[in-house]
Amino acid sequence: MGNPIVSTSLVNASTIPRAQQIRNFLQKHDLRAWIAWRPDELLVLSGYFPYWGASLLICLADAEAILFVPLLEPRDHIPTGLRVQEYPWGDLKCGDPYSVLVSAVGSELVKAKVKGEQVGMNPSASRISLPIQAAEQIPVPEGFSAQLSALTTKVSPQCLAAFADLYLRKTSEEVAAIRQANRVANVGLQAFFENLRPGTAEADVAAEVESAIHRQIGGDGIFHSRGWAMVQSGPNSADAGRFNRSTGRRLEEGDLVLIELASCVNGYWSDLTRTAAVGSPRPEAARILAIAKDAQQAAVDGVCPGVSAGYIDSLARDTIAAQGLSSFFTHHTGHHVGFRYHDPGFLLLPGESAKLEPGMVITIEPGVYVRERGCGARIEDDVLVTESGHEVLSRIEGSAQQ
Amino acid sequence: MGNPIVSTSLVNASTIPRAQQIRNFLQKHDLRAWIAWRPDELLVLSGYFPYWGASLLICLADAEAILFVPLLEPRDHIPTGLRVQEYPWGDLKCGDPYSVLVSAVGSELVKAKVKGEQVGMNPSASRISLPIQAAEQIPVPEGFSAQLSALTTKVSPQCLAAFADLYLRKTSEEVAAIRQANRVANVGLQAFFENLRPGTAEADVAAEVESAIHRQIGGDGIFHSRGWAMVQSGPNSADAGRFNRSTGRRLEEGDLVLIELASCVNGYWSDLTRTAAVGSPRPEAARILAIAKDAQQAAVDGVCPGVSAGYIDSLARDTIAAQGLSSFFTHHTGHHVGFRYHDPGFLLLPGESAKLEPGMVITIEPGVYVRERGCGARIEDDVLVTESGHEVLSRIEGSAQQ
Repeated sequence: MGNPIVSTSLVNASTIPRAQQIRNFLQKHDLRAWIAWRPDELLVLSGYFPYWGASLLICLADAEAILFVPLLEPRDHIPTGLRVQEYPWGDLKCGDPYSVLVSAVGSELVKAKVKGEQVGMNPSASRISLPIQAAEQIPVPEGFSAQLSALTTKVSPQCLAAFADLYLRKTSEEVAAIRQANRVANVGLQAFFENLRPGTAEADVAAEVESAIHRQIGGDGIFHSRGWAMVQSGPNSADAGRFNRSTGRRLEEGDLVLIELASCVNGYWSDLTRTAAVGSPRPEAARILAIAKDAQQAAVDGVCPGVSAGYIDSLARDTIAAQGLSSFFTHHTGHHVGFRYHDPGFLLLPGESAKLEPGMVITIEPGVYVRERGCGARIEDDVLVTESGHEVLSRIEGSAQQ
Repeated sequence: MGNPIVSTSLVNASTIPRAQQIRNFLQKHDLRAWIAWRPDELLVLSGYFPYWGASLLICLADAEAILFVPLLEPRDHIPTGLRVQEYPWGDLKCGDPYSVLVSAVGSELVKAKVKGEQVGMNPSASRISLPIQAAEQIPVPEGFSAQLSALTTKVSPQCLAAFADLYLRKTSEEVAAIRQANRVANVGLQAFFENLRPGTAEADVAAEVESAIHRQIGGDGIFHSRGWAMVQSGPNSADAGRFNRSTGRRLEEGDLVLIELASCVNGYWSDLTRTAAVGSPRPEAARILAIAKDAQQAAVDGVCPGVSAGYIDSLARDTIAAQGLSSFFTHHTGHHVGFRYHDPGFLLLPGESAKLEPGMVITIEPGVYVRERGCGARIEDDVLVTESGHEVLSRIEGSAQQ
């Protein structure tokens, strides 16, 4: 789509190192420790991505962090600089390993001379990323958060909001990991473009994409690589603004085909969408695809530090409205991404005044879905805000980018 | 492995129809309604498997159930017999769709003349199955359960345990769905056996298995089919009692290769394990594999109504102990399966006195993992308890079952 890279040098030199971000947060909220067990929180706070999703981290203001892992956890992906302790999750003879864990956490806080009112925690079990064992939600039981609450202070909504802000400004190491996730996702997209043939089922295309991503395990330090590909063709593409799923429908000459692709590599996420035609699209489908591309490019072109999320949204929305299709773009223009498929933080929505800053990674994903015309189109990229503008992390030189 | 099917006729004629099970449960606990929003609870109570995981069901003792679905939910898989209402989840103009939903639920309860103390709910957000959109945990926010609590009574632990018991006895329709999940999983296992070649990476084998399962979408009423394949070869197979994951390791002649395979078809789950050799295994590996197979077969052979879970566990455990390897079988022998990868309910553990009943579907999965020998083996099947014995749902005639 031309001009993919605006700036690559010193992409986010201004982002404060992660350890300093955490210290600043604790200090500002009069805390000396933070307890985390959600996979995405572990990743933000320590770079560690759990297998089971039953690990727990104590972040300390004045000492190295302590990571509790289940007896059954693999150890080879644990970053250095964490004190690792084991608890008996997975031991047949231990009936209540979580109580053992909570008790051990309490002991460590006493040892570190940290009082309960100095310990914060996010009590929410909502909107958690999946761990490496991705076939189930994390196994932490209902009472776990309540048990930990006895060791912690009830933090204010302002403090929780500030904690969620820790997701927003990625460090250069984190950007590198998100760039890798996008590089892997592009291997999947390559498979998507190669499989757009009449007669191939949507689910077959999706299977090929996920397979290509899965096979990246073992190269370049990749210990976990999984894609969720959702392919919608012909009339099904008109549903892509409401949901994304693959059916058994077989592609036909002239179809628009849309792929929504979530990819997780070593815990870091990419969220991409492409739309392409099988052969030559009908004129109205070609027009809708062109408008979606133009809207997306207009929004991408506008990304730089200091502009508001609402302004970026308007660049996409106005492009679509100028073609008389505003009612067919029904969702937001983007969201933060990287530690989860959908990171917390402001959305790119009409009127949103929050400003872009260097180190932020956002999706840009306007779409046009016209059920009466039996087609829809969306293009989605992951865009890093740099000092001087932006870098599209998901457009890889040499990749197929129809 | 011989004698796969003990009984197929009238496999669970004695299981009470689902609607009757629900009425009995409500009546026994003086309830006239139950509110559910977890994907697995929706499946148990109504046969509906949500896309987003943001649907809500009101089960009524005296009227047809009411299903609330997000504006963005696909409608084509909603079973008949449910009154469907929409709420504005996904509407850009609605800032708090969950409040709209809670308010609508309250109105329906008033219309049905059901008082708060007659309405039950499982308040736990723990151990939930993934919905069709499987790349994220369900999007229900932290405060949702608390909001609903205002409309419901606080049910006793006994009532919650009785609710979990609704997962245990599958109806013939549910068994048919779990049988289909196992048939699809076997397509994946076929790909596993076909790809056991020296030089192939574990992740490549896993990718082929998942791809084969994914491609089943569109046939036989299958709208959702996803596998999570975890392949461990050679020395990695010795870790399979602690965790299951695929690495970039390439298979070698003589390796034992273990696959843990979770499969979800239309919401219903299969949980299988196979272990096979690449070419001819070393004698000690061959012995460990033979012992795991013998232990598994001994436990499967013992499955029939009226025996205890602990007895079935002992059949496997004693077989392994008789070979002097008891310390290398470190986990339970099985669990309930079907509505989730791991259904709630008793485990097959030493000393467990709970008894098997017709309609129960359990995994039988003993394993032997000897790190010093650099190999591990586990065989796992999904077994239905029938009136007269059992049926192994996961051994499909004509499939490769090395």
